[in-house]
Amino acid sequence: MTPDQIIDGLQCGHFDRDSFVNLKAAGVHGVVVTCGFWEGTLESLDSLGRWRDLIRENSDVAAFGYTPEAIETAAAEGKVAAILGYQNSNLFEGRIRLVEMWAELGVRVVQLTYNNQNELAGSCYEAEDSGLARYGREVIREMNRAGILVDCSHVGNLSTLQAIAASEKPIAVTHANADSLFAHKRNKTDDVLHALRDTGGVIGVAAYRNITGDYFSGPIENWCEMVAKTVDIAGIDSVAIGTDRSHNFTAPDYAWMRMGRWTRGVDYGAASAARPGKAPPPDWFQSLTDMQIIPNGLRSVGFSEEEVAKITHGNWLRLYGETFRKSNS
Amino acid sequence: MTPDQIIDGLQCGHFDRDSFVNLKAAGVHGVVVTCGFWEGTLESLDSLGRWRDLIRENSDVAAFGYTPEAIETAAAEGKVAAILGYQNSNLFEGRIRLVEMWAELGVRVVQLTYNNQNELAGSCYEAEDSGLARYGREVIREMNRAGILVDCSHVGNLSTLQAIAASEKPIAVTHANADSLFAHKRNKTDDVLHALRDTGGVIGVAAYRNITGDYFSGPIENWCEMVAKTVDIAGIDSVAIGTDRSHNFTAPDYAWMRMGRWTRGVDYGAASAARPGKAPPPDWFQSLTDMQIIPNGLRSVGFSEEEVAKITHGNWLRLYGETFRKSNS
Repeated sequence: MTPDQIIDGLQCGHFDRDSFVNLKAAGVHGVVVTCGFWEGTLESLDSLGRWRDLIRENSDVAAFGYTPEAIETAAAEGKVAAILGYQNSNLFEGRIRLVEMWAELGVRVVQLTYNNQNELAGSCYEAEDSGLARYGREVIREMNRAGILVDCSHVGNLSTLQAIAASEKPIAVTHANADSLFAHKRNKTDDVLHALRDTGGVIGVAAYRNITGDYFSGPIENWCEMVAKTVDIAGIDSVAIGTDRSHNFTAPDYAWMRMGRWTRGVDYGAASAARPGKAPPPDWFQSLTDMQIIPNGLRSVGFSEEEVAKITHGNWLRLYGETFRKSNS
Repeated sequence: MTPDQIIDGLQCGHFDRDSFVNLKAAGVHGVVVTCGFWEGTLESLDSLGRWRDLIRENSDVAAFGYTPEAIETAAAEGKVAAILGYQNSNLFEGRIRLVEMWAELGVRVVQLTYNNQNELAGSCYEAEDSGLARYGREVIREMNRAGILVDCSHVGNLSTLQAIAASEKPIAVTHANADSLFAHKRNKTDDVLHALRDTGGVIGVAAYRNITGDYFSGPIENWCEMVAKTVDIAGIDSVAIGTDRSHNFTAPDYAWMRMGRWTRGVDYGAASAARPGKAPPPDWFQSLTDMQIIPNGLRSVGFSEEEVAKITHGNWLRLYGETFRKSNS
């Protein structure tokens, strides 16, 4: 892949043909897609089925990103590789033996928990982060073995540190920012970023205004300044892109993301009562095709071609190579 | 009910006709039965269906204990009232709106979590007790409203304290002992027992050797000495009986209770690697009918008739009266 070709560590929402056409136009040739937030096993299978149909129906512009090689092939052919991921572990429904089956069905990235504490780990939004629970340790071991990348984006910082320590393979924070650059519950403390750096993990710098702040959501140079400052903390081999961009989201989708079925009340997720709705995208990121300006933005803040390539796709490819493989143990 | 008539705050296992016949012979006229440990919504409905068949097929000796009045009626008629309970909240499958539906189907007691941390609370067996999570607070509010008694027996001590504080109605620890009398992760610290006392909650003193210890599992006087010492801590209005007796359990049942589907490894629950199998029952409690010696055992350690009646059934009936009712709010 060339330095101008991008892998996005996380997008979500209702993808359609336009999504792939626009991603391709932006030079995005790999993207981790969110197949579920709260859904249990059967609902997650439904989602996987819809994703298979979608990719098949658009096979001239889209492909499955089951391996790093498949992503590189898609890029060479001008296609967009969808890497199947879930932002929660409810697809397992507490069953350790389902982890390898989901891997065999093509799932490559699973977040230990979403906005609420669960049987695996604590969430960034709970009053207390429980740390990694016993089932969470088991699931990480099984994901390591089965070839699923552990994602700790919405996971609490303590649980994330413990997941990094527990995992035999490097892990990802697919979409978050450095808490020291923009303070938010969803963002990661420097000790988490240092632990990613020290273990070969990767953080995808987000471009979601609620967790990026207005300054870094200004012109592309500002956002790339955030990337550079994240590299100062986590190192050039552990920083990539994870925009958290959503496709065709409407109010019921935000309600589902935030409230799911767990509350009769209102939850704002990364938003707030003062700014409850859809956050406006960063100034530089009005449409999906604007992602094409990222590589030059990175150059403008001083990154070399080699560094640009690591950030735009190389670090993700390296991590996928280390984690998307089934081990014998 | 007379002082010699007993309500047992928790039993589990595969009940059959003999179970009811023997409970009746022992003077046990109310018992919270465990309809599930790890089962999700559909499996929990299956279990509820089997329980309905069992009660219907044995309606000469068994009845449903949906209300305190129904339990008293059963006692007057010489029947055993089954109070439907679950030792985990998986029957809700994370859906807050299912709480009231389960209440309408007759469920009266639900433990927030069993041996593992979940979306509601921390467990006594995790390295860290998370405290009560956001969904746990929601579920307690909904159980209060729908008429389901909150059970914190396997819940961690911190989560239990927070559940007591969060609940508008008193809660139960249906089957556990005082940690200060026999130290075990499953047992409750004195601050929990004091909080139960101060809020009208009730602890059912257990007769499961692994959490009772050998001394208090000796002759009935020893076990009743434990009851008396628990009363010294929690007060006469907050102590009752919750034997944790199991019916027709075999090795696969213990494997299911302890490992469910969450681990590929071995978990011992309240047992240990040194004593992994079924714990021998207390010396005084070789058969179910031995429960008939409890009232005289309580008298032998100095309890008055009024006190015996509170411990054998009165405290449970009072608590059920306060919690088994649907509120308008």
